Amino acid sequence: MTTRIPIVENILSANDRMAARNRDLLDQAGVYSINIMASPGAGKTSLILKTLEALNGRLKLGVIEGDLATSIDAEKAAAAGLPAVQINTGGDCHLDAAMLADALPTLPLEDIDLVLVENVGNLICPANFQIGTHLNVLVASIPEGDDKPYKYPGMYRGVQVLIINKIDLLPYVPFNMDYFKRGVEILNPGVVTFAVSSKTGEGMDEWADWLVERVKNNGG
Amino acid sequence: MTTRIPIVENILSANDRMAARNRDLLDQAGVYSINIMASPGAGKTSLILKTLEALNGRLKLGVIEGDLATSIDAEKAAAAGLPAVQINTGGDCHLDAAMLADALPTLPLEDIDLVLVENVGNLICPANFQIGTHLNVLVASIPEGDDKPYKYPGMYRGVQVLIINKIDLLPYVPFNMDYFKRGVEILNPGVVTFAVSSKTGEGMDEWADWLVERVKNNGG
Repeated sequence: MTTRIPIVENILSANDRMAARNRDLLDQAGVYSINIMASPGAGKTSLILKTLEALNGRLKLGVIEGDLATSIDAEKAAAAGLPAVQINTGGDCHLDAAMLADALPTLPLEDIDLVLVENVGNLICPANFQIGTHLNVLVASIPEGDDKPYKYPGMYRGVQVLIINKIDLLPYVPFNMDYFKRGVEILNPGVVTFAVSSKTGEGMDEWADWLVERVKNNGG
Repeated sequence: MTTRIPIVENILSANDRMAARNRDLLDQAGVYSINIMASPGAGKTSLILKTLEALNGRLKLGVIEGDLATSIDAEKAAAAGLPAVQINTGGDCHLDAAMLADALPTLPLEDIDLVLVENVGNLICPANFQIGTHLNVLVASIPEGDDKPYKYPGMYRGVQVLIINKIDLLPYVPFNMDYFKRGVEILNPGVVTFAVSSKTGEGMDEWADWLVERVKNNGG
């Protein structure tokens, strides 16, 4: 008598299964989505508001804001006229797929082309949790310093787009762009990169144009 | 027959037991210690180097640097002439007491008055782990924005000292100091606060003088 040994080809974690379900929901609704990650205060919310301006009506946006506490960011997005949801994680240092699964149905997905998910401010934990979005975006910030790729390799390795924000502060802080970019290149060769200022608007058009193309190529 | 029910008055977690052991080791060596926490890039390492300058030999320092990866920070401290140890946490988003227990014996504690422990750059996870130091210090940074106390209440609640760094950038970024301080006051009324610039040195003397008094009052 032989014993049959079951072969399990692909065991997904509970989080990854939920992330796949989120992706299915988004794809069925024809909605593209990005997961925006950064340190606290790198300018994620300001970037979202400036992106809205630069898109100038070319895409219909929805926003999901993740924070430990408060609804400050969702209120800012709502004040700008965007459908917005706030997720408060309590103590959790990142969003997970289950949180996104709770938030997505509260947005009017049929009227949305692109959902911008703002993750909890943290360069470590969010990199370890796929949530089901189509694209991972990291917002780096000039005053954070040029050594962050070296110190937070997991985050810099796991994104498809890098936005270098607050370039208006370059004259006032020590920041060696060559050293920074060398670190990025080691971890994530050829990653799509934009240099912007959410304050002055510099570089926002290039980013917004790229985003429109990306969403349209996705069939949105 | 009666069953005796054991009463356990104070069950400490494994981390807290280890933290208490670290504190004993430090106290026996007559060494004061502080746990410096902040976002990535708030300027912890620069603050340590400027503190060394402002102390001007009044205290003998040792430095323990925590990062996911690299020895960049410990090399900077060593280059400034300080006994320095680097802890690489791998993926861990905070230092814990066991990591400090491994690092402390590698420093020449008999020649040190004050150990500065630089935690991993993160406003969430490090607040949840006591490591055995005498004082928790949070370095906030002007370009991070004025809403951080509201968004990261656990961190702002759990410290005895708040250092507001990069005040030289106040003219270039939106930051409402009243709004920031109201948030701090709600969470941590009366917390000892310093406003400094690691770049220009402004405010460093007040902080260094306070630190000297604190260490001496501890019997150091």
